[in-house]
Amino acid sequence: MDITRSGLYTDFYELTMAQGYFCSGKKDDRATFDLYFRTSPFEGGYAVLAGIEQALASVRAFSYSPDDLAFLGSLGFRKEFLDYLAAFRFSGDIDAFREGDIVFAEDVLMRVTAPVIEAQLLESMLLNIVNFQTLIATKTMRIVSAARGRPVIDFGLRRAQAEASMAATRAAFIGGAVGTSNTLAARQLGIPAIGTHAHSWIQSFESEYAAFSAYGALYPESCTLLVDTYDTLASGVPNAIRVARELEERGERLRAIRLDSGDMAYLSRHARVMLDEAGLQYVKIIASNQLDEHLIDSILAQGAPIDSFGVGTKLICSYDQPALDGIYKMCCINNSPTIKFSENPEKINNPGRKSVVRFLDEQGKFFLDALTLEGEQPASLDSIRHPVMPLKQTSVRRAGARPEVVLLPAVRGGRPVEDAPDLARVQAFARARFAQLPDEHKRFANPHTYRVGLSAGLYDLRQELMDRRLENG
Amino acid sequence: MDITRSGLYTDFYELTMAQGYFCSGKKDDRATFDLYFRTSPFEGGYAVLAGIEQALASVRAFSYSPDDLAFLGSLGFRKEFLDYLAAFRFSGDIDAFREGDIVFAEDVLMRVTAPVIEAQLLESMLLNIVNFQTLIATKTMRIVSAARGRPVIDFGLRRAQAEASMAATRAAFIGGAVGTSNTLAARQLGIPAIGTHAHSWIQSFESEYAAFSAYGALYPESCTLLVDTYDTLASGVPNAIRVARELEERGERLRAIRLDSGDMAYLSRHARVMLDEAGLQYVKIIASNQLDEHLIDSILAQGAPIDSFGVGTKLICSYDQPALDGIYKMCCINNSPTIKFSENPEKINNPGRKSVVRFLDEQGKFFLDALTLEGEQPASLDSIRHPVMPLKQTSVRRAGARPEVVLLPAVRGGRPVEDAPDLARVQAFARARFAQLPDEHKRFANPHTYRVGLSAGLYDLRQELMDRRLENG
Repeated sequence: MDITRSGLYTDFYELTMAQGYFCSGKKDDRATFDLYFRTSPFEGGYAVLAGIEQALASVRAFSYSPDDLAFLGSLGFRKEFLDYLAAFRFSGDIDAFREGDIVFAEDVLMRVTAPVIEAQLLESMLLNIVNFQTLIATKTMRIVSAARGRPVIDFGLRRAQAEASMAATRAAFIGGAVGTSNTLAARQLGIPAIGTHAHSWIQSFESEYAAFSAYGALYPESCTLLVDTYDTLASGVPNAIRVARELEERGERLRAIRLDSGDMAYLSRHARVMLDEAGLQYVKIIASNQLDEHLIDSILAQGAPIDSFGVGTKLICSYDQPALDGIYKMCCINNSPTIKFSENPEKINNPGRKSVVRFLDEQGKFFLDALTLEGEQPASLDSIRHPVMPLKQTSVRRAGARPEVVLLPAVRGGRPVEDAPDLARVQAFARARFAQLPDEHKRFANPHTYRVGLSAGLYDLRQELMDRRLENG
Repeated sequence: MDITRSGLYTDFYELTMAQGYFCSGKKDDRATFDLYFRTSPFEGGYAVLAGIEQALASVRAFSYSPDDLAFLGSLGFRKEFLDYLAAFRFSGDIDAFREGDIVFAEDVLMRVTAPVIEAQLLESMLLNIVNFQTLIATKTMRIVSAARGRPVIDFGLRRAQAEASMAATRAAFIGGAVGTSNTLAARQLGIPAIGTHAHSWIQSFESEYAAFSAYGALYPESCTLLVDTYDTLASGVPNAIRVARELEERGERLRAIRLDSGDMAYLSRHARVMLDEAGLQYVKIIASNQLDEHLIDSILAQGAPIDSFGVGTKLICSYDQPALDGIYKMCCINNSPTIKFSENPEKINNPGRKSVVRFLDEQGKFFLDALTLEGEQPASLDSIRHPVMPLKQTSVRRAGARPEVVLLPAVRGGRPVEDAPDLARVQAFARARFAQLPDEHKRFANPHTYRVGLSAGLYDLRQELMDRRLENG
């Protein structure tokens, strides 16, 4: 994943603007940018934030080699600017939600405060990393929640978008996958590598039985047999049962069969009966083949006796929504709040340097998130307002509601505030936070919208900037 | 893109199977696998093959370092097998279509013939590379064809699936994009880096005019101004005109304005009138913002005076279909043709080692593709049959039709047959081949299905293998 650490891993316009700030004497103007998204992915009620650790590592490493500078020189960038880039190291401050936290549209996920030239150069890289990993962690959490406690394994390498397989596998683990088929990712991330055999293994033997038997002899402790090469119920399952009995004679146990085509509810039910009648209650059934959260939900609602799910295409590239529309907007320049206008009020950003305060209810469940201006005390907050509909207000003075600051210092003066947690801890944190999210926000169809609102001070500031802009024409 | 060259960049089951072939004494069984897809992406009539060069480079480099082997040892792989992997180098043969060729469902895009253990280990890597790049090259060709000669630029880095940005930019160039915003990809691929400035540039100045003016002074020869920060027609375009006149006074010319929000047909028409009335007929209009082939087609059909298109999200992750379902199926083992069965006849693969012959009509346009058994002479072919509907036959004896072998030797004995062409040549080849595709296959809605059929010999072999399988139960 090292390319993201190159100073060239950026849209070209960040560089032309950076040279512009440099030559206009503005490079040290202090700017704040917010990274956030405007709409929850999958028409869902939440997202799982991921990519923060890699983003921070890339911020630390973001720099320009002599070769990079020679390349930029060949494109016409000026010598003084290249000299500046030669010494480039991010020197600013970043606040961020903890990786794995449950986040919502309009939450400020990362806040970068730095000389404008530095904050600008990071834009494309931060969006590239955080947009994608958040998307995949969210997709996986949806699939994992549909599986209702049954393990979900990432099988997506062959359908991944090229090298995105690596970041996707990382994000899938954060979202709750228990392992991956991607061996290189498993090694780099320190997570389980999982897999058994394909149809070609069967085809390379004279018969399905011979292939199963050879596989069982080779891997007696972890043998999962793929039963759909010829005919799942007429050939695959009976041959698997025959091999399971051979294993039993040697004191070993077939671990599982895998269904990879056909109707999973129908096939799993019949396969389960056949296995049980053969006294093989302990043999598990794994399903794979075009699964997503909706199909898993439907199959399990029909009572399908499936014990775990291998999920490929639909997870690894987030098939039904392959991009998260996260953005990075300047909200403050030289201590002046600023906005980008739009005829669409939802597209006008929230100005000023902001904090995010999450209020928990008496059971510790998420109640609402408040965007406040830096310096406003959470305790002084009475209510929040909807970003574009001022008549929609919610009191935060609910019995037992307590504030928790969720946008936290991550980098100060270019240095990380703390070491990155290991991936298993991030996964556990995501699971714990998901448990704090009320169920009505987890529904796949028409989830209840979680409230993210503005403090009165922030709301008024935004209105004032809009009024001022209109006056100035 | 180096991770794809690691022997660990593979699904874990390829390794468990490889050890299985090794321990069963089958590792040197000669196998042939076909890489192909079953359905054209985007409900379209064609695909643009891409990723071949990177796939072949990864085949050559695919190997295991001592660290890789230690990792596999820790997972329980056997010492003898690890010793085999330590010396792993692909030694087999690969045939492939030329990169950039126009290809269709069922065409054998790559054919790998090698000891089964070698051909198996490459599966996931080949699919990961070829599936994705073919998808993006195809998507881009669709967008480029919708733009009817106007340049299309890749602006997708921030919405790319993480590091897939690099392979996507490469494939987009093959598909006809003229440049990219991704600076690192531009450098690695030797293609133009393109970009100007963002809203934040405007926000960092006291006024839009001041920001434009400063930008024009900095980049007099390549100045494109983004005109929608405050109000496109009321503020952005008038300020751009003012700066254009300042440039004219210095003997320079504003290159373009960029529209990035709102209705492109409406805004471009009004902006064009304003520019023309100011005598700025030479100033171009660039459009960006959620564009894809359908939107570009519709905007241009309305007569929008747009000169070039920046395309981001919808191109870079192939938003409406983010994965191509390419597969890799064993078709021959130890000179015996083999098939993988399915209740769905379309999912039964074509057995045996095959060639692909494309017949061109008298104008040099593509007429049909024939899958033939190796050794069958194109000249002896009378007709082709539909893979699953034998009543559908097409004669190849059309006046002037001439055969062209399109599946060509790429690797022999592990060594490349020729050097990889440079990317500009691949792009030119794709453009030339696209020109040979009859227009009825290029339609976005209900394109005419291009014929890919089986020779009588292949058809009969497939039927025979199915009959034999059914007899054996």
